Amino acid sequence: MLTIDPLIATPGPTEIPQRILLAMAKRTTNPDLDPDFFRRYDEARGIIASMVGSSKDNVVVWVGEAMSGLEAAVANLIKAGDKVAVLSNGMFGDAFADLVSPYGGSPIIHRVNYSELLDPDKVRVFLRNEAKEAKVVTMVHCETPSGTLNNLKEIAGVVKSEGRLLIVDAVSSIGGVEVNTAWGIDVLIGGSQKVLNLPSGLTIMVISNEAWDEAERVNYRGFYLNIRLWRNVIEKGEFPYTHSEPLINALLESLRLINEEGFSNVYMRHRAVSRGVVEAVRAMGLKLVPERDEYSSPTVTAFYVPNGLSDVAIREAALKYGALIAGSWGVLKGRVLRIGHMGYTASVNAMVTALTALAKALNDSGYRVKVGDVIEAFLSGVAA
Amino acid sequence: MLTIDPLIATPGPTEIPQRILLAMAKRTTNPDLDPDFFRRYDEARGIIASMVGSSKDNVVVWVGEAMSGLEAAVANLIKAGDKVAVLSNGMFGDAFADLVSPYGGSPIIHRVNYSELLDPDKVRVFLRNEAKEAKVVTMVHCETPSGTLNNLKEIAGVVKSEGRLLIVDAVSSIGGVEVNTAWGIDVLIGGSQKVLNLPSGLTIMVISNEAWDEAERVNYRGFYLNIRLWRNVIEKGEFPYTHSEPLINALLESLRLINEEGFSNVYMRHRAVSRGVVEAVRAMGLKLVPERDEYSSPTVTAFYVPNGLSDVAIREAALKYGALIAGSWGVLKGRVLRIGHMGYTASVNAMVTALTALAKALNDSGYRVKVGDVIEAFLSGVAA
Repeated sequence: MLTIDPLIATPGPTEIPQRILLAMAKRTTNPDLDPDFFRRYDEARGIIASMVGSSKDNVVVWVGEAMSGLEAAVANLIKAGDKVAVLSNGMFGDAFADLVSPYGGSPIIHRVNYSELLDPDKVRVFLRNEAKEAKVVTMVHCETPSGTLNNLKEIAGVVKSEGRLLIVDAVSSIGGVEVNTAWGIDVLIGGSQKVLNLPSGLTIMVISNEAWDEAERVNYRGFYLNIRLWRNVIEKGEFPYTHSEPLINALLESLRLINEEGFSNVYMRHRAVSRGVVEAVRAMGLKLVPERDEYSSPTVTAFYVPNGLSDVAIREAALKYGALIAGSWGVLKGRVLRIGHMGYTASVNAMVTALTALAKALNDSGYRVKVGDVIEAFLSGVAA
Repeated sequence: MLTIDPLIATPGPTEIPQRILLAMAKRTTNPDLDPDFFRRYDEARGIIASMVGSSKDNVVVWVGEAMSGLEAAVANLIKAGDKVAVLSNGMFGDAFADLVSPYGGSPIIHRVNYSELLDPDKVRVFLRNEAKEAKVVTMVHCETPSGTLNNLKEIAGVVKSEGRLLIVDAVSSIGGVEVNTAWGIDVLIGGSQKVLNLPSGLTIMVISNEAWDEAERVNYRGFYLNIRLWRNVIEKGEFPYTHSEPLINALLESLRLINEEGFSNVYMRHRAVSRGVVEAVRAMGLKLVPERDEYSSPTVTAFYVPNGLSDVAIREAALKYGALIAGSWGVLKGRVLRIGHMGYTASVNAMVTALTALAKALNDSGYRVKVGDVIEAFLSGVAA
């Protein structure tokens, strides 16, 4: 049978749409010298700022995988001896604890099961008791390995009312789920290779004035991860190092696409497609990783592999049928499959492709599902 | 008059050839999951290894501007209290001193004028006296702001015979000038946006086994700049974070181009074109920044702006005539102009364009040169 390129339906890196690939292939100038590069960088900052309710002077986009932003947030806000409240319902939540120690911080971890969400009331109790000395709080918005989305607005409200600084890993949600820094986020970190449909290589940070002031006090002295060097780069007319023009061109193209569609339309689309995928998973008789449907992230759906089957075999068969889906990481490795619906793939066509490939792969493994019923369930979920 | 895209003749970022732009625009998969990505990464490592006389297991390519590699070399080899011998004949040489202090190191600087080169005998005396306690030595191969190229082979020989670890910033030379780690280089750092004609975003490091062992002892605990996490990534089948597939595709294309031409042919081409540009500068009656012609780097030529003229006005006029050339930085800002001949632009056609534009720009500024004589001098230099 004729084969076409398989769809990348993983929870990042994602499918890179042709418009974005072509933006990367545009002729470049010298970004250190060309004022037009600064203009494009500034336009990108402006769209990000309006997307997350901030001012463009608070937006930094630098060259590095998103991990560089997570570490930078910690490095710039934590001094030796500081206690840090690490809120976690998963692998990336836990990871913040590992980033804290090298900078002399002491992580105090509030951990809930990966199938659950952080609970605002319990977070308040934690901050008032075990973590009462913590100046900084860290959390993850969307935990991709388990496919959950925390209630960032409520948690941020609690953190702020308790007078702490909040660092949020929004790498897998930014651009697909509403995030507003006015909820009380001091450093918001986003990555390029998830909903924005770019390759890895750019980190987005939205830094509150309070966080910048605290960074001045902390006075982190490293260079590459130093957020203070990025304050007012446009006004200074100079970046700390040479920026990556093709990646900024790609980012701007992606942000323009989001802006043209409208932020709330984009979020509704992700929500609808996600609802559809959840219904499709249910129609296949599979169990979601998140304890309740409403815990599931609009950008990724995670579900258990049917008993006795191999996640690798299912993924290989699905790829043969035209869709690359993912396994999972950490304690969920081997037990869980995941489908990303991020940006370009948060669409009916992409998910019909991915779900058909998955359903056929399950059938190949001896787990019987009727493909048509799965697609019907998906479409009903989208329309609901 | 018909205008075409101006040539980017700056000492990085450089012109990105169409073959490389198109490599960046290729359809991507998920680099975390696709074995073919690991194969391409490994092929790139292999070409780099044969280019610099190392083994591919010692080659790391990560996501970050080259500054990330310079800082990482220091962070991983220096412990609090360590003394570091900083050899410098320019701005980037000096910059190592600033990178050392945040990691608790004490820089001991051996500085010579930016128009001169490091002298092996003086370096030996320095290492035996002022810097006798320094475990690590840093130096820059090509100082772009002044356009000089240090004699890396001889200096490395001295450093090794004195039993120290050597960190070399080869960001602006790698791929255009012979560099062999067997001369005695422990961490060699290269960047993507210079001779390799990629955008910024990738850092190349070639790490000796001794350096990796020392990094184990130093036990730097940060994440993003931690070189230990990159040892044997191919064998582990996992990168510390998601790699940038389009940039690796572009790097591989660039390395294949270099490999096809042959390393020594590439170096001879840079040397010849550089000789031509030096002769052209002389024919214009301008003064090179390097004290002697033979100090000048095969990848960049730096020369003083004629008395009373504005570097900005000359650059703007040259751009109008179809070539973007650069000013300089630091103490040379405003006084110096630079032409990069790196990779793609280390060619007769590119330099005829750049030199014609410069000569016409000088004429516009009232500084009379005969364009034809400049081009004749250039071609004679190339053929010499």
